[in-house]
Amino acid sequence: MVELAECFGPVEAELNALEQALGRELRTDSPALQSLVRHISAYAGKRLRPALVFLSARACGSAPTAEHMKLAAIVELIHTATLVHDDILDDASVRRRVPTVNALHGNQVPVLLGDFIYAHAFAMSVELSTPEASRVLARVTKICCRGEIEQVFERFDFDMDEEAYLRVIEAKTAELYAASAELGAHYAGGTPEQVEALSRFGRLIGVAFQVIDDCLDLIGDEAVVGKSLGTDLEGGKLTLPLIRLSSLLDGAERAELQKLITDDGVEDRRARLAERFELGAALDYSFQRADDFIRDATRELDVLEPSPARDALKNVAEFVLCRKK
Amino acid sequence: MVELAECFGPVEAELNALEQALGRELRTDSPALQSLVRHISAYAGKRLRPALVFLSARACGSAPTAEHMKLAAIVELIHTATLVHDDILDDASVRRRVPTVNALHGNQVPVLLGDFIYAHAFAMSVELSTPEASRVLARVTKICCRGEIEQVFERFDFDMDEEAYLRVIEAKTAELYAASAELGAHYAGGTPEQVEALSRFGRLIGVAFQVIDDCLDLIGDEAVVGKSLGTDLEGGKLTLPLIRLSSLLDGAERAELQKLITDDGVEDRRARLAERFELGAALDYSFQRADDFIRDATRELDVLEPSPARDALKNVAEFVLCRKK
Repeated sequence: MVELAECFGPVEAELNALEQALGRELRTDSPALQSLVRHISAYAGKRLRPALVFLSARACGSAPTAEHMKLAAIVELIHTATLVHDDILDDASVRRRVPTVNALHGNQVPVLLGDFIYAHAFAMSVELSTPEASRVLARVTKICCRGEIEQVFERFDFDMDEEAYLRVIEAKTAELYAASAELGAHYAGGTPEQVEALSRFGRLIGVAFQVIDDCLDLIGDEAVVGKSLGTDLEGGKLTLPLIRLSSLLDGAERAELQKLITDDGVEDRRARLAERFELGAALDYSFQRADDFIRDATRELDVLEPSPARDALKNVAEFVLCRKK
Repeated sequence: MVELAECFGPVEAELNALEQALGRELRTDSPALQSLVRHISAYAGKRLRPALVFLSARACGSAPTAEHMKLAAIVELIHTATLVHDDILDDASVRRRVPTVNALHGNQVPVLLGDFIYAHAFAMSVELSTPEASRVLARVTKICCRGEIEQVFERFDFDMDEEAYLRVIEAKTAELYAASAELGAHYAGGTPEQVEALSRFGRLIGVAFQVIDDCLDLIGDEAVVGKSLGTDLEGGKLTLPLIRLSSLLDGAERAELQKLITDDGVEDRRARLAERFELGAALDYSFQRADDFIRDATRELDVLEPSPARDALKNVAEFVLCRKK
């Protein structure tokens, strides 16, 4: 089991300073907005994307600068905006053990709050010394939305294969990981080879992260994972374990699986899925695919000089895998 | 009655070219996204914000450049993203005589589509020669979301006064008009005096526009206005005509008005409002306030040299008022 301290050691000071920076950034004199910002500060996760910004800078041989602090805040804010909007899409009621904004206020407020946070992140990116970050992050946000839109239109599409699934999760999740590592390296003066390798590293761990997230949506414990689970199944999102399960079934069983996913008003679909089908092999396969991506990611780090930051990035990759436990 | 041709004459060629530019900008190889983009092209309105960009450039003595064409597309895209998200907030079913995206696809798709269009607009703004547009437009988007969030939290707040109302509509509507005129002038090399006067001009006509929009929400004809009306009343948004009406009523009548607005499940609230209350004086007052803002706006144009573009801006201001008819 990899502990986060092993991953983040070389950039612990920066990650602590980031917490202050995020608090400062979203301060506002609007009481309504301030109460929302305070509420979603509970969504604070592992800060993986900011850690990628800082560690990538260090792995290219430079101490993180004030620009990296801004970049780290920006990628975390973009991620936060995505969460706020995702909870509307998934009709989720719990996020990091607190009620979602939509659960508290309906759908109007989180639409606007997400827009506000995106706009704030873009406003921050404009303050950097070069337009590279603004350009990359606006492009990534577009790709992410496009991926999510395609996923909505592919709901209940039982012909979706693993390749199509990987394309969607790369767009909706992995591109922001890639951008975090890439921009961390770029603003540290990394060579094009280093920047590109770290971008691929970020993308690969992002894909692995999402594969495991999608497995946890089916089998995780809400009390441990800390957010609404089973939402993919409720929304008809065909994720890797389901695609694999479907491919392992005979015709009659496959029809039954499709019925379980598509029928209206099935109570506790997750429990019924686990009761009726043997999920083990499909989950093992999915975790193995995540493992493959992590191996590929780790190999990308070979172009970097050995350093504590490079070791920490390897640990981050291992940590992503540990979430399955 | 002012015709749009009188307003837009000096920049007709640019506005025609804009239609091509907008079509090109949103082209994508994702069939799902392309069908959505094609659908919302029917939302195309009067292109008032792009016209402000072009006319402000000309009124400062410069022909619009390729940068103005990009700016015009950007402000129109930001406006479009706002409409797509607004229709979720208002639970609106019709926009410009076509079904809204939420009416067709539920709330997931328009959340993502609006995010995509915002991100595209920011990506375009990064391509301009200076970061001024990105800075102004990210700030304006933040202000707009903040204004909308405050409006949501002030629903059913019968203590809201005209001043608080004006603050909200300035944020949610008028700032983007102000930015359109300001950036048009700025990227044409206008003097600080010209840029600031045009910014104030834009803000004032934006406020007038919203006041009239809010009157039409109460008394307009859906077939003429072309969008869902009565949504403010359904959502408990207290707009100027309602604030004024309330101030003209005695205690018992005011309680009845509040009951009409707050009671659940009232059918056709708009018709009941018109039947039960004499709206004339409150509407006259609101239109008079819009007229005042337009007079103030027109005076801002005095710092500009006389030109066909300056005359056209005066006509735009008059056109905003004509919508009440």
